[in-house]
Amino acid sequence: MTQAVQPIVAFQGEHGAYSEEAAQQHYGTNLSTLPCESFEGVFSAVRDEEANEGLVPIENSLAGSVHRNYDLLMRHELHIVGETHLRIRHCLLALPGTSLESVRIVSSHPQALAQCEHFLSSLKGVDIVPAYDTAGSAKALRFDDKVERAAIAAERAADVYDLDILARDIEDDPSNYTRFLALALEPVQPEEESKTSIAFTLDNQPGILYKALGVFASREIDLTKIESRPIVGKPWEYMFYLDFVSGPAGNKSKAALEELETMTTSLRILGTYERHLWQKWN
Amino acid sequence: MTQAVQPIVAFQGEHGAYSEEAAQQHYGTNLSTLPCESFEGVFSAVRDEEANEGLVPIENSLAGSVHRNYDLLMRHELHIVGETHLRIRHCLLALPGTSLESVRIVSSHPQALAQCEHFLSSLKGVDIVPAYDTAGSAKALRFDDKVERAAIAAERAADVYDLDILARDIEDDPSNYTRFLALALEPVQPEEESKTSIAFTLDNQPGILYKALGVFASREIDLTKIESRPIVGKPWEYMFYLDFVSGPAGNKSKAALEELETMTTSLRILGTYERHLWQKWN
Repeated sequence: MTQAVQPIVAFQGEHGAYSEEAAQQHYGTNLSTLPCESFEGVFSAVRDEEANEGLVPIENSLAGSVHRNYDLLMRHELHIVGETHLRIRHCLLALPGTSLESVRIVSSHPQALAQCEHFLSSLKGVDIVPAYDTAGSAKALRFDDKVERAAIAAERAADVYDLDILARDIEDDPSNYTRFLALALEPVQPEEESKTSIAFTLDNQPGILYKALGVFASREIDLTKIESRPIVGKPWEYMFYLDFVSGPAGNKSKAALEELETMTTSLRILGTYERHLWQKWN
Repeated sequence: MTQAVQPIVAFQGEHGAYSEEAAQQHYGTNLSTLPCESFEGVFSAVRDEEANEGLVPIENSLAGSVHRNYDLLMRHELHIVGETHLRIRHCLLALPGTSLESVRIVSSHPQALAQCEHFLSSLKGVDIVPAYDTAGSAKALRFDDKVERAAIAAERAADVYDLDILARDIEDDPSNYTRFLALALEPVQPEEESKTSIAFTLDNQPGILYKALGVFASREIDLTKIESRPIVGKPWEYMFYLDFVSGPAGNKSKAALEELETMTTSLRILGTYERHLWQKWN
């Protein structure tokens, strides 16, 4: 993080979004957040120095990788400078004074509605209405006088829009985590054990991925993510996303990347950053 | 595919959904489709023999893997018996007689709306309204007399609900493909070159993934997909999804799987099935 007194962090969505909650977890509460309409907008805000950093989701434990943000990482010249894992805890929010029994309409993003199916089916006589996003459905309650409406959103949306929390942790599956990446114009050099994210393409030869991974295995470098992604329009060609962990010195990983480069048709180092340990999730 | 005269194929969504379009592409048009509310419902319909097969999306070129369906594959005892790749072509649909200029409201699933952002921004004075799903937004037009409404959905939805197609291929990114898996109670034994999908977990030892992949590399077995997925609640443990291609005999792959099993903490063979070649996409 740059040492601005109050950093400006761009995120996608409305105030009160899960991305904003992740920003507070990652940077602390002494920050200024810049809501952007799209992920593209987050990348542009950092590029154009309207924000010091941007925070975007890159994978969710239930929904998988956010390929859109990998695509934007490839297209823009930003660096990954940090990561954070946020537990997604859905809350049912309503205007102050609303009781759970009086709720007749529940609104949220279809994915959030689907993740709370069990809870929603326990409510009687309630209409489920899809919305653009979770925080937006919470914000919309403020434009409505009716106390029969509720929204599913992050706890943070209750603070932002001054709403009551009628129910917490209403998601069916508590193992719902999103990993966010912090992005900046300039790379960082972490002093501790760090993580590096790379993207590369290989020629289509049998066993070439095995050879590529040997670069890491022979140096006992731990992989924390590997994913292949077909390149549409180029049958048999694949893009690989790989994250690995390296010690403070980073000599081993430098040598590994140099050897890897001799095998790849393209290689992009997306960033080296301090690792956010899973243990901290609990 | 079982040799029923008119097989019953379960899919998630309303009639006219992309999944139903994929079913017609995969099975031909002489089939009976069974719409299910949830993916879970598709698995149950096949298990309870209400359908001969089920067809579910497993990965999208823009949105990535559908982890929910991997989870259901692990929990149920069904077999993958086929695959098909569908190009997702969004259409703007409306009641017959509607002109593009008269449209004031466009409704669809938020993901489809986001994928048509460029097209939608070219329409003037139009409200964008999120809906539960694409086919559902097309169906809803039928309950409405107003010709100012339109929906974004599959071409198939126009047939099903007798709607006009005001615009075709309105997606920003044409490289939008979804891979669907066909599921059945009994496995198949393909005679041609086939694909096998497996899921496994490994102990957390440095280089163990490299060793596991060596099982395939040493036999020159081509991998077509690899993805690691963190197991939430078990730090450092990963589930791996892997697809590989094997010849008609399958002896090599049998030996590879036997060797792999000695290294894994769990191994599940999800199915062996005829490969749907990418070349067919064009």
